[in-house]
Amino acid sequence: MKQIISRKNKRLILVTNDDGISSKGLRYLIELIKEYGDIYVVAPELPNSGKSHSVTINYPLRYSVISEQEGYCEYCCSGTPVDSVKLAFDRILPRKPDFVISGINHGSNSSINLIYSGTMGAVIEAAMCNIPGVGFSLLNYSKDADFSHCDVYIKKILEEFFKNGLSEYTCLNVNIPASNIKGIKVCRQARGMWVERFEERIDPHNEKYYWMRGEFVNLDKGTDSDEYALSNNYISTVPIQLDMTNYKMLKNIEQWDLKI
Amino acid sequence: MKQIISRKNKRLILVTNDDGISSKGLRYLIELIKEYGDIYVVAPELPNSGKSHSVTINYPLRYSVISEQEGYCEYCCSGTPVDSVKLAFDRILPRKPDFVISGINHGSNSSINLIYSGTMGAVIEAAMCNIPGVGFSLLNYSKDADFSHCDVYIKKILEEFFKNGLSEYTCLNVNIPASNIKGIKVCRQARGMWVERFEERIDPHNEKYYWMRGEFVNLDKGTDSDEYALSNNYISTVPIQLDMTNYKMLKNIEQWDLKI
Repeated sequence: MKQIISRKNKRLILVTNDDGISSKGLRYLIELIKEYGDIYVVAPELPNSGKSHSVTINYPLRYSVISEQEGYCEYCCSGTPVDSVKLAFDRILPRKPDFVISGINHGSNSSINLIYSGTMGAVIEAAMCNIPGVGFSLLNYSKDADFSHCDVYIKKILEEFFKNGLSEYTCLNVNIPASNIKGIKVCRQARGMWVERFEERIDPHNEKYYWMRGEFVNLDKGTDSDEYALSNNYISTVPIQLDMTNYKMLKNIEQWDLKI
Repeated sequence: MKQIISRKNKRLILVTNDDGISSKGLRYLIELIKEYGDIYVVAPELPNSGKSHSVTINYPLRYSVISEQEGYCEYCCSGTPVDSVKLAFDRILPRKPDFVISGINHGSNSSINLIYSGTMGAVIEAAMCNIPGVGFSLLNYSKDADFSHCDVYIKKILEEFFKNGLSEYTCLNVNIPASNIKGIKVCRQARGMWVERFEERIDPHNEKYYWMRGEFVNLDKGTDSDEYALSNNYISTVPIQLDMTNYKMLKNIEQWDLKI
């Protein structure tokens, strides 16, 4: 770990994302949170949307210094968001951070999209190390998305997050409507799925290839879900845990005949 | 969808993995389960360990036919395990399969390793579409791992799985000791984490690069966890759900001051 540029009595915040170091959402987030502590940005050099919790095992990683000043340092990493967090923890940060903040993602990570998300992969990785984190996502996939309506809401959530903390091994999944925000709701994760319709094309060598295209389907009729909140122009805030055990089903499987 | 080679009144089983189409674990699994139905293998052409739930968005996918016979078809896909499942569902299988079986992975996917796992990514993808699945993993990372002690246990679990089914939107995470199996336990997911120690090397251009190396740490003292079962030479069987909401923490966050 480097012995530089982290100030005593200041929060140490690791900032990352999955859209890559140059994305507008990351830049907006950095400016918004500089006042809250010493900021270390360690983000993928390239876009990593849909990379989930993937890690780079069969290739080595690299990182480059972009900026090193008192209170603000910035690096880009050749790997995924989770690679960036792991490399930051072991090789870049002066100590384990107090918080990890990821985003702002260009696009939704509500419902089961959380499981595909590199933005959330980064904060789930932090939660595994018991470091509280928040992932922010805006429901606008455009590279030029307008984030200017988000600031007061993100600051409100972060201030409560810094003040109250989270239960151990937990992180927050925050999704923000593209416009006309009515307020902030605390929600559960909606049930949903993707229905794919791959688009077939023919390459110049007369071989078929397929572009993944699909549509998210909300399967949840509840009014307490993130999808419901978002469809009513509320920001959704869902606490996420790492234990994916289905405890109800566990009781059923205990009745199976598994004796050999 | 193709209109071939699926027999009436036969189970249709999609088989995949993350170690790639030529891995020994996949070959062993295929031979073991051929008796249970019509088998469609759609697996990554290359190793995809640690690819989690990642999907290929920015590049197109391809697949190749390896074999198409009555009751047994085999294809390899250029993408990840989740890509393979999505492409199989939309473009390769004659209909949605009855079951998805993934593995046998060369290495553990117990505890939070499930979240990094491409093997489990595939069956989690199936669970999102409400298709019951099982991921099998052996606690031996060797390419030449010996699977011969697994057959009676895998068959026992599969027969109960086919007979009883699973709750909706659920899958099973089965991990198998490398040797000396004492029996099968139904468990919850243990709490654990990885501690990374990146190995620094210098390339021929005098630039640093880093190999990810780490150690899994079991943080769970319970005797009902998958880690406990495995450390006592039992096969662990954990039902996995898609809802990652921390409901206890949700009650706490509802007390936060989030009014603007």
